[in-house]
Amino acid sequence: MTELCYDLAHLAHIELLTPKLEESARFFIDVMGMSETTRQGDSIYLRGWDDYEHHSLKLTQSPKPGLGHYAFRASSPQALQRRVAAIGKSGWGKGWSDGDLGHGPAYCFTDPDGHNMEVYYETEWYVAPPELKPALKNQSSRFPDHGVGLRRLDHINILASDVRATRVFMENVLGCRLTEQIVFDDGSEKASWVTVCNKTYDVAISEDAYGAKGRLHHFTYAVDNREDILRAADICLEHGVFIESGPHKHAVQQTFFLYVYEPGGNRFEIATAGARLLLAPDWKPIVWTQAERQKGQAWGMKTIESFHKRGTPPVEDE
Amino acid sequence: MTELCYDLAHLAHIELLTPKLEESARFFIDVMGMSETTRQGDSIYLRGWDDYEHHSLKLTQSPKPGLGHYAFRASSPQALQRRVAAIGKSGWGKGWSDGDLGHGPAYCFTDPDGHNMEVYYETEWYVAPPELKPALKNQSSRFPDHGVGLRRLDHINILASDVRATRVFMENVLGCRLTEQIVFDDGSEKASWVTVCNKTYDVAISEDAYGAKGRLHHFTYAVDNREDILRAADICLEHGVFIESGPHKHAVQQTFFLYVYEPGGNRFEIATAGARLLLAPDWKPIVWTQAERQKGQAWGMKTIESFHKRGTPPVEDE
Amino acid sequence: MTELCYDLAHLAHIELLTPKLEESARFFIDVMGMSETTRQGDSIYLRGWDDYEHHSLKLTQSPKPGLGHYAFRASSPQALQRRVAAIGKSGWGKGWSDGDLGHGPAYCFTDPDGHNMEVYYETEWYVAPPELKPALKNQSSRFPDHGVGLRRLDHINILASDVRATRVFMENVLGCRLTEQIVFDDGSEKASWVTVCNKTYDVAISEDAYGAKGRLHHFTYAVDNREDILRAADICLEHGVFIESGPHKHAVQQTFFLYVYEPGGNRFEIATAGARLLLAPDWKPIVWTQAERQKGQAWGMKTIESFHKRGTPPVEDE
Amino acid sequence: MTELCYDLAHLAHIELLTPKLEESARFFIDVMGMSETTRQGDSIYLRGWDDYEHHSLKLTQSPKPGLGHYAFRASSPQALQRRVAAIGKSGWGKGWSDGDLGHGPAYCFTDPDGHNMEVYYETEWYVAPPELKPALKNQSSRFPDHGVGLRRLDHINILASDVRATRVFMENVLGCRLTEQIVFDDGSEKASWVTVCNKTYDVAISEDAYGAKGRLHHFTYAVDNREDILRAADICLEHGVFIESGPHKHAVQQTFFLYVYEPGGNRFEIATAGARLLLAPDWKPIVWTQAERQKGQAWGMKTIESFHKRGTPPVEDE
Repeated sequence: MTELCYDLAHLAHIELLTPKLEESARFFIDVMGMSETTRQGDSIYLRGWDDYEHHSLKLTQSPKPGLGHYAFRASSPQALQRRVAAIGKSGWGKGWSDGDLGHGPAYCFTDPDGHNMEVYYETEWYVAPPELKPALKNQSSRFPDHGVGLRRLDHINILASDVRATRVFMENVLGCRLTEQIVFDDGSEKASWVTVCNKTYDVAISEDAYGAKGRLHHFTYAVDNREDILRAADICLEHGVFIESGPHKHAVQQTFFLYVYEPGGNRFEIATAGARLLLAPDWKPIVWTQAERQKGQAWGMKTIESFHKRGTPPVEDE
Repeated sequence: MTELCYDLAHLAHIELLTPKLEESARFFIDVMGMSETTRQGDSIYLRGWDDYEHHSLKLTQSPKPGLGHYAFRASSPQALQRRVAAIGKSGWGKGWSDGDLGHGPAYCFTDPDGHNMEVYYETEWYVAPPELKPALKNQSSRFPDHGVGLRRLDHINILASDVRATRVFMENVLGCRLTEQIVFDDGSEKASWVTVCNKTYDVAISEDAYGAKGRLHHFTYAVDNREDILRAADICLEHGVFIESGPHKHAVQQTFFLYVYEPGGNRFEIATAGARLLLAPDWKPIVWTQAERQKGQAWGMKTIESFHKRGTPPVEDE
Repeated sequence: MTELCYDLAHLAHIELLTPKLEESARFFIDVMGMSETTRQGDSIYLRGWDDYEHHSLKLTQSPKPGLGHYAFRASSPQALQRRVAAIGKSGWGKGWSDGDLGHGPAYCFTDPDGHNMEVYYETEWYVAPPELKPALKNQSSRFPDHGVGLRRLDHINILASDVRATRVFMENVLGCRLTEQIVFDDGSEKASWVTVCNKTYDVAISEDAYGAKGRLHHFTYAVDNREDILRAADICLEHGVFIESGPHKHAVQQTFFLYVYEPGGNRFEIATAGARLLLAPDWKPIVWTQAERQKGQAWGMKTIESFHKRGTPPVEDE
Repeated sequence: MTELCYDLAHLAHIELLTPKLEESARFFIDVMGMSETTRQGDSIYLRGWDDYEHHSLKLTQSPKPGLGHYAFRASSPQALQRRVAAIGKSGWGKGWSDGDLGHGPAYCFTDPDGHNMEVYYETEWYVAPPELKPALKNQSSRFPDHGVGLRRLDHINILASDVRATRVFMENVLGCRLTEQIVFDDGSEKASWVTVCNKTYDVAISEDAYGAKGRLHHFTYAVDNREDILRAADICLEHGVFIESGPHKHAVQQTFFLYVYEPGGNRFEIATAGARLLLAPDWKPIVWTQAERQKGQAWGMKTIESFHKRGTPPVEDE
């Protein structure tokens, strides 16, 4: 029996492209309650109150919204070398970068759909300045008294023109585990969820309705309780933030969610998984059928049309 | 740099000794909302609604309350062999058992304090009977409409005459990671928390106030939200269940908790960690000082005296 | 300035007609967590755990679902006499009945749309049998350890062919206060909410999409927290209860809600108002416009079509 | 049968004395999420996000903490006249004041223990400035995105040297209803809770452990859900606010609570009653015995000593 791969420790950060850098920053800081670590060039670096690294979100000014890149932290220097070797062998490698603010050398690559990715090990542990020093020393920074209060980066959901190809890459080259997927009656793989740790997913891959490549569906931060999501909806309502869907509970993965659009046009999710974890080392992927997907979300809400189609950057026929 | 050990997948089950088998079973089934998988001899096998194995709690009739044994599931057959070799080498091994209802061969051993433990890989995935079939197929069985509704086994807290010795064994022999600990001004290690996965602890080891060996402080099941704990307190109140402490929030590990005594006399905890996970591969253990511990729990509640002393089985001078 | 009328103390009970008496009873008892006080003839009498009277819900076997009648308790014997006089004068009175199990003589009448109503003062305070005796003596009976755990009757929503006529009757004859309403651009009154106490509504009156008379839209029990509604959705999901809409938050009245169909076909709501109360004696009714209503619910969910149309008993063109 | 008195609509505002005016204001605004309506002289006027009047809390600079006065709003001009007549007749009247910012003429008086009180009818409805304009027009102002987010004033708890005398005054002169009380074995009335509306209490009267007169135990604002209280505790922890007790649930009145000290030294409570209301017009007061009180709070937490003794202003032997 092949042993599981533990080389990637966790989803580490996302670079989000936004045509409205300052407005996006104000949304994530004022409304969502994130804190700004630093700014450099066209980028602003942000983190949730319990993210332990320098940043988990990098906002970068760009003509169009979308994904800049996303990154995993490796479990060790050795694990990093193993994954770099595997990626190189796969032919999707692009080479090393010197790193970025907050982390060391990163190996850059793309998945078969063209999403920019990287993996690194060396990182800078966040040290809270006095005004963000937490009362309890086992958390990264102060629990915020304003905004939604995002705890930590949870997952990313990319769109892919070929879900299967990207999912197989994530499994075979990166060592991810497939936990759930949607497969239609004609055998087409509509979406797949993969993980590198005990979270039930770090990356979701959904079919791009336009067959476009390299697009972003959404990315997600975790809060602790379902009530935090309800409060987030109240706060978004008052701030005029567009709520696309929720609060509700997904059937797939059972995440309790709220989807909104940040000012740059990207879809953003606030979610909680409760105490749900992937603990079994021999988990058999759950396969949802076409009929099951058409039932809508867990409590019967029909999935809104835009959720099936919209991604960033926008494509011409949208 | 030494790589982390992933050989143990998760805390798998606990055998609890109880002088009142039927009453303990009624407590865990009716009040806590667990389901009974089967009975055999003097034992009743129970599980939370999202535990994927045959059982996570085995109640066994015994003259005194306390811990029978507790078990880890290994990550693979190879991982099992590696841990068995390491335990054997440590001198604490006892040899193989044929396993039990629901799981295959288990290697038995003790920690240096004498707690009975075992590790196994082969297991029987739970298949819900029709009346417990869940509406969503990505959960193990129905979300219960009665009782507290424990989701899954979370952790165990043992008492040890020598915390350090047991903690070092957990680290060096089993491959656990130390995440937090309490160390007094005289250097004595009062409590340590270790994990084998992304939960921030699977096992807590506290100093036995009586210097006794092999005793149990409590064990814990997880629910999804803090509100579930508050509702659990209301249910316990109505059922006349003795509430020792809580609902409140621990400073150490920040768990939101409720401690009660089950009818057999063992302490039992219902808890939620929210979205808190140990994701960093290079986490540096948090060390709490004597002064910090004396501050009480997170929101200032003084820790109740019995919490520092009482364990099962009871010792003479209690 | 005319003083407010306090003659009606509160909405007291609802008689619900159901073609499936036993199934409806099982729904309200097993799934919703109500308790059965007694049975007599074709009726079963139920109550929420903190309803202080003999019953707040009377289920009666009937060929079709719908409303049997609904009742207010008067604030005093004198208040009862005043309201009886006013109703008699309005021409809608039907005369006295001897009362029912649990309450004394009731004066029967209809509103202009034909809904059967009654008002009474004498009542039988519920005394919990030993197995339902609460741990805290300031509540009517035990907090249930099963089902949703409905606390108390909250409100009723009737359908009327002429909303204005019924609303004016509620105000002028019964002494209700109008708190919110929906008035379309053409001046038509689509819905009105009235109260007799500090709740912001006891009765909602919505336009019947079919112009039918005397129909029921839904009735509602209160729970304490929003999380209770989310848990109710999980329980309904497992029990195969049809969820029409929610959990979500209404814009009008801001109630956090879940709408389901009970087995007899009637719509039923579980809701919480949080700490929202009508305290101002000079509250000015909130008037929602056509455009505002079309925005959907508070967080943007479009109101489902069936919610605008379906009532009980069903009408031919449904 | 005597009819209930509805002359007082609700508890309207509290004037709180504080030796640290600015710090107290910062606490209520920044940490508790209240908004400031205006400042005048040595006073700052504040309100919760759904308080409909100009203010519900007036902070006034003073050498010592304590209660300035507290006020009821009458149900109508006629009701005001009736209560003024009754108070005058009781001998506790002090005469009319011209009112204050936000309300019209007020009749001033004391209870037999010397607490300053007033009653008025004319009031100024709060109109939110653009930046506090709510998204939903049926609430007074924006749901705050910072701090605890107090919804509305809930109740006040005064200390009295003679609980019975003050309680009888509240009942006979003001028309309050007694809902619960604690009476010791020797017949002494230790605490009483009275209401003027459907809340189960607007004023609590507790025995002053020092026999002092006119002191304040605490006052309370309501939030919507229990989870809001838990979040409040987290926020207080981060702000270094002293938490005296809670979160926990009272046995008496079953309020879910958190007690803290504001910077001026006064005790302050954040609480929620859930869906609990006093609806019965013939409610029989619940009488708690000495033994019942000694059981502690609902879930067994022993009441902290300071809670039984401390009041403001402090007395010499504290």
